Amino acid sequence: MATLREEPLQLPKPTNPMLTPLFSDLYQFTMAYAYWKANKHLDHAVFDLLFRKNPFGGEYTVFAGLEECIRFAASFRFDDSDVAYLQTVMPSTCEDEFFEYLKLVDCSSVEIHAIPEGSVVFPRVPLMRVEGPLLIVQLLETAFLNLVNYASLVTTNAARHRQVAGNNKMLLEFGLRRAQGPDGGISASKYCYIGGFDGTSNVDAGRRFGIPVRGTHSHAFVSSFMGAEEIHDRSLCYSNGDGKCDDFIGLTQYWLGKLQETEAFLGLFMEANQSELAAFASYALSFPTKFQALVDTFDVMRSGIPNFCAVALALHKLGYKALGIRLDSGDLAYLSKQCRRVFSIIEKEFGVPGFRSLSITASNDIKVETLEALNKQGHEIDALGIGTHLVTCSSQPALGCVYKLVEIKSQPRMKLSEDIEKVTIPCKKEVYRLYGVEGFALVDIMTGIDEPAPKIHERILCRHPFIESKRAYVAPTKVEKLYKCYWAGKSGITAEPLPALEDVRSRCKAQLAAMRSDHLRVLNPTPYKVSVTLQLYDFIHYLWLNEAPVGELR
Amino acid sequence: MATLREEPLQLPKPTNPMLTPLFSDLYQFTMAYAYWKANKHLDHAVFDLLFRKNPFGGEYTVFAGLEECIRFAASFRFDDSDVAYLQTVMPSTCEDEFFEYLKLVDCSSVEIHAIPEGSVVFPRVPLMRVEGPLLIVQLLETAFLNLVNYASLVTTNAARHRQVAGNNKMLLEFGLRRAQGPDGGISASKYCYIGGFDGTSNVDAGRRFGIPVRGTHSHAFVSSFMGAEEIHDRSLCYSNGDGKCDDFIGLTQYWLGKLQETEAFLGLFMEANQSELAAFASYALSFPTKFQALVDTFDVMRSGIPNFCAVALALHKLGYKALGIRLDSGDLAYLSKQCRRVFSIIEKEFGVPGFRSLSITASNDIKVETLEALNKQGHEIDALGIGTHLVTCSSQPALGCVYKLVEIKSQPRMKLSEDIEKVTIPCKKEVYRLYGVEGFALVDIMTGIDEPAPKIHERILCRHPFIESKRAYVAPTKVEKLYKCYWAGKSGITAEPLPALEDVRSRCKAQLAAMRSDHLRVLNPTPYKVSVTLQLYDFIHYLWLNEAPVGELR
Repeated sequence: MATLREEPLQLPKPTNPMLTPLFSDLYQFTMAYAYWKANKHLDHAVFDLLFRKNPFGGEYTVFAGLEECIRFAASFRFDDSDVAYLQTVMPSTCEDEFFEYLKLVDCSSVEIHAIPEGSVVFPRVPLMRVEGPLLIVQLLETAFLNLVNYASLVTTNAARHRQVAGNNKMLLEFGLRRAQGPDGGISASKYCYIGGFDGTSNVDAGRRFGIPVRGTHSHAFVSSFMGAEEIHDRSLCYSNGDGKCDDFIGLTQYWLGKLQETEAFLGLFMEANQSELAAFASYALSFPTKFQALVDTFDVMRSGIPNFCAVALALHKLGYKALGIRLDSGDLAYLSKQCRRVFSIIEKEFGVPGFRSLSITASNDIKVETLEALNKQGHEIDALGIGTHLVTCSSQPALGCVYKLVEIKSQPRMKLSEDIEKVTIPCKKEVYRLYGVEGFALVDIMTGIDEPAPKIHERILCRHPFIESKRAYVAPTKVEKLYKCYWAGKSGITAEPLPALEDVRSRCKAQLAAMRSDHLRVLNPTPYKVSVTLQLYDFIHYLWLNEAPVGELR
Repeated sequence: MATLREEPLQLPKPTNPMLTPLFSDLYQFTMAYAYWKANKHLDHAVFDLLFRKNPFGGEYTVFAGLEECIRFAASFRFDDSDVAYLQTVMPSTCEDEFFEYLKLVDCSSVEIHAIPEGSVVFPRVPLMRVEGPLLIVQLLETAFLNLVNYASLVTTNAARHRQVAGNNKMLLEFGLRRAQGPDGGISASKYCYIGGFDGTSNVDAGRRFGIPVRGTHSHAFVSSFMGAEEIHDRSLCYSNGDGKCDDFIGLTQYWLGKLQETEAFLGLFMEANQSELAAFASYALSFPTKFQALVDTFDVMRSGIPNFCAVALALHKLGYKALGIRLDSGDLAYLSKQCRRVFSIIEKEFGVPGFRSLSITASNDIKVETLEALNKQGHEIDALGIGTHLVTCSSQPALGCVYKLVEIKSQPRMKLSEDIEKVTIPCKKEVYRLYGVEGFALVDIMTGIDEPAPKIHERILCRHPFIESKRAYVAPTKVEKLYKCYWAGKSGITAEPLPALEDVRSRCKAQLAAMRSDHLRVLNPTPYKVSVTLQLYDFIHYLWLNEAPVGELR
């Protein structure tokens, strides 16, 4: 699939045009200057981008944001105004030659190897390996972290929602208004789609990414109607084009009357609000083929449902089929069952095939815990609109990706820490995923770059990178090399093309399917194993011993 | 201060170029179509934008995001490609005339009244009143909510950090890498500055908004050095230009030796890491006037501090003054005190005036609770770099602003709900803040648009909008009308110019100073009172009675 990229810099720019080389922390530039002053700026450096802990109390993460990083790298170039601004914020002692040098900098000497976007990934395994001249790979840090952190977090959140909701529910992302800023919203729509959502309310994301967009109306629409007398053009053609109903409003009122008289509903529907009926009827006049109504403006069972059913039955008489309802408040499980009951009675009483199966969409502050509660209670909801908690990742709103130097001028580097989670694994590495006999992923193993790849059916010792006692032999039935080269600069080597959004989404689905379900479950999931080869293990601990201050016993 | 805006549409575009009219939920467009079909699209509508609950368990919120909303309104116009995309996602039954109509839509008939940006605000009081033709004010909803929700949330979060940190600490926003997407980061920098931060690490935000930018170096910088032998150009001029030190590296090594021999430090500094010393010395060669070092790469007290002090003393000998250190791990309170002790000893031992007062910056996952703990323990930190928790607002990552129809064609509208918090206050309204004898704000009061304003020293009955028993007479010493008109379209009325960022920041500070401290405190704050006039109260309850389904006793 890989093709030689003749013109490596001809990728689209990042989605957000605000991503210029100044999208960075100041210290990247002060470091760049110091590297340049020390004549270290061209030293070949290898950085790993990784996270240390899975989010949401889970045991997996979905990697996303890679395409934006590659586009950022491809477009990375300072213009004169960037450099002019930098000169104003750097100390005045900085030499002009440095700023002239910056104007020449680009990513043509950088290589980026990464796990494919949409993959299931785990702590400590670098998602990306970025190498090239020290100065330039240092300058990529902030943007890469920003682009990967939220993308991976929200994709993982979406995947968790999908997992709990099950595969037969439609999941819609409704978070734009509550997202953290404009592209919090736009990128949430994209990454939730990758994580398994079916669509979004966000029109801009629909246009940008080709994601299906969905939506009906709000309470304000209902409130804006004062009564049927407002509606002047009341005619509606039959769906087959044969003739026309001159007073569709009257027809909905007729059907409301019929419902009110129906024995099964006796006394229940008498308070149906007339302005709500007018609003629904008007909406149906606008969208006779796509009639879906928000039924909780006044009272779901006493007003919204009879009004909706009246309009749906009137449409039916003209040959149309209503889509269904949306519930946005109250006890969603209970109400959905009540609604289904009414639909069911109407299907029988009035002989309207399919009425029972009208779609019920629910929204209102839904999160993973809500989905679990709905599952327990039983419900009749077909589609869920999920916003705030999904897009802001309220149960953990940040993923802590870091970007660590692991090798410079072919010398391995290691960041020590009293906190074992924060110790980084040195050296330029490869990563392989080993699969077991049942086809599930068993363990990820990191090797030094020059070590041979694990082989199928050949026993290999997988060691926990830091805990002596944790080790096991594995004879994989399948070995997957995780890194591909997505950015080769002008190195002449082959770079993988960036996959289409649908392919990334499919990859996410397939990868989740290849994980044992106990790693994925919400309650007390089993940690997936991440290991190193014996050779890398020994090297890490040799280096650790030599770098740590003498006399510490930890 | 207000000036007549001759060309009301000549404002800058929103900061994020992704904010087009398609930055919206699909249902806004389906509703727009239905309004148009029902010939209601020009009905004069009034929407309130408000929130229902203060974030972070507090009792106040700082309003922000207004300027972006006004810029969005000013630039609101569909281009052909926007409309062409919309046609592909709307049902094919939609009439072409509607799409032609959309191309003519702009905000020239819209008026936006709002509380000034940077004001302290409270639940239920509309932050913005948006009025104009129903179709267009409906289409503004999603973008306005997106632009206000996160902006107000993160500004409030910053204000809370400032409040707990006190006014004499420097607060720096370091959140770009962990923010929810690119402009989560860029707007966080802006709004944290409004909320009381002193600067940011974010270079792009520095350029865009003129915010001070700050930063030193990372662990990678230290790790990139293998030893002093790497550094070839070792000379450094004296600060006064009189001569030059040929071997600054040697000078730092000399001073490290002196420190190691100093009786007060005997045995403590023997493990100072040589590559760290080389990194610090190299950084000092690059920034002799701005030397600040991250001291926790190996071990703060045994390596980072002696190395920093050696370099600082060497700089001192050449007439320079180091800035200080940054701590990014460990027990920040304890370490800061230990560092200060060392600085203090050095000031005395080596007669270096000011060495004791070198700046200590702390970072590493700081949040409000960390600041409180630091205060309790006592510490020597001068500046705090705060990232993840600040910008993602981890303790509550979304503010729930809503946008509610309160009047249409001069008819008041009210959204009822079983949840009293969700009931909206109908009618086009004015809002006043009433101040007491001590100069503090006492209560906000909403009135119908035609009611007279409360008068100084005149008793007025302030009623809780929904709870009968909560009411009190107030005789204000000062009455502040909260709304100003920030967007008058082409109405010919006078629109307030948008204040500069520094003015918004000053307003926030002044507004917080005008609040009683018990409303602002973190633990168990007192709710601030929000009320309505007797006339509005009676009207709300008259309307409620008439809109609610008969027979409900709530």
